Amino acid sequence: MYKVKVYVTLRESVLDPQGGAVKQALHTMAYNEVETVRVGKYIELSLTDVDNVTARVQEMCEKLLANTVIEDYRYEVEEVVST
Amino acid sequence: MYKVKVYVTLRESVLDPQGGAVKQALHTMAYNEVETVRVGKYIELSLTDVDNVTARVQEMCEKLLANTVIEDYRYEVEEVVST
Repeated sequence: MYKVKVYVTLRESVLDPQGGAVKQALHTMAYNEVETVRVGKYIELSLTDVDNVTARVQEMCEKLLANTVIEDYRYEVEEVVST
Repeated sequence: MYKVKVYVTLRESVLDPQGGAVKQALHTMAYNEVETVRVGKYIELSLTDVDNVTARVQEMCEKLLANTVIEDYRYEVEEVVST
């Protein structure tokens, strides 16, 4: 079994209105130390045992989980050994 | 300067319809190894130097970034030393 964590973030050059709204809200709450906020997605998957797990996860990211035109992604694959 | 990464996830007991939709989509695409999908948020903040940074980040999470009734959060604070 595998546990996979995928982090999807907007590319640097893409405007992030949600992040801007969070930043404004934090400033309103007197957290003036906040300089930038970027909001992305964090996706946890559990997979049954399968060959080429890394390649398959990469495919899932490219095809569905991330929109690679405007988003970057990275992932961590961890093998879970059940005892 | 600090770089902060906040991971917000739905609590175990809370239904995740978005995760369910992603799982169905992955099955449709023949990724049948996918057992569970949970979708959360990943928030990156950059902060100027401030005292008690960890306590302040925790407050931001409690007050704004996470809805602690249905969500869990964790964060990492990294000090960035500019040279």
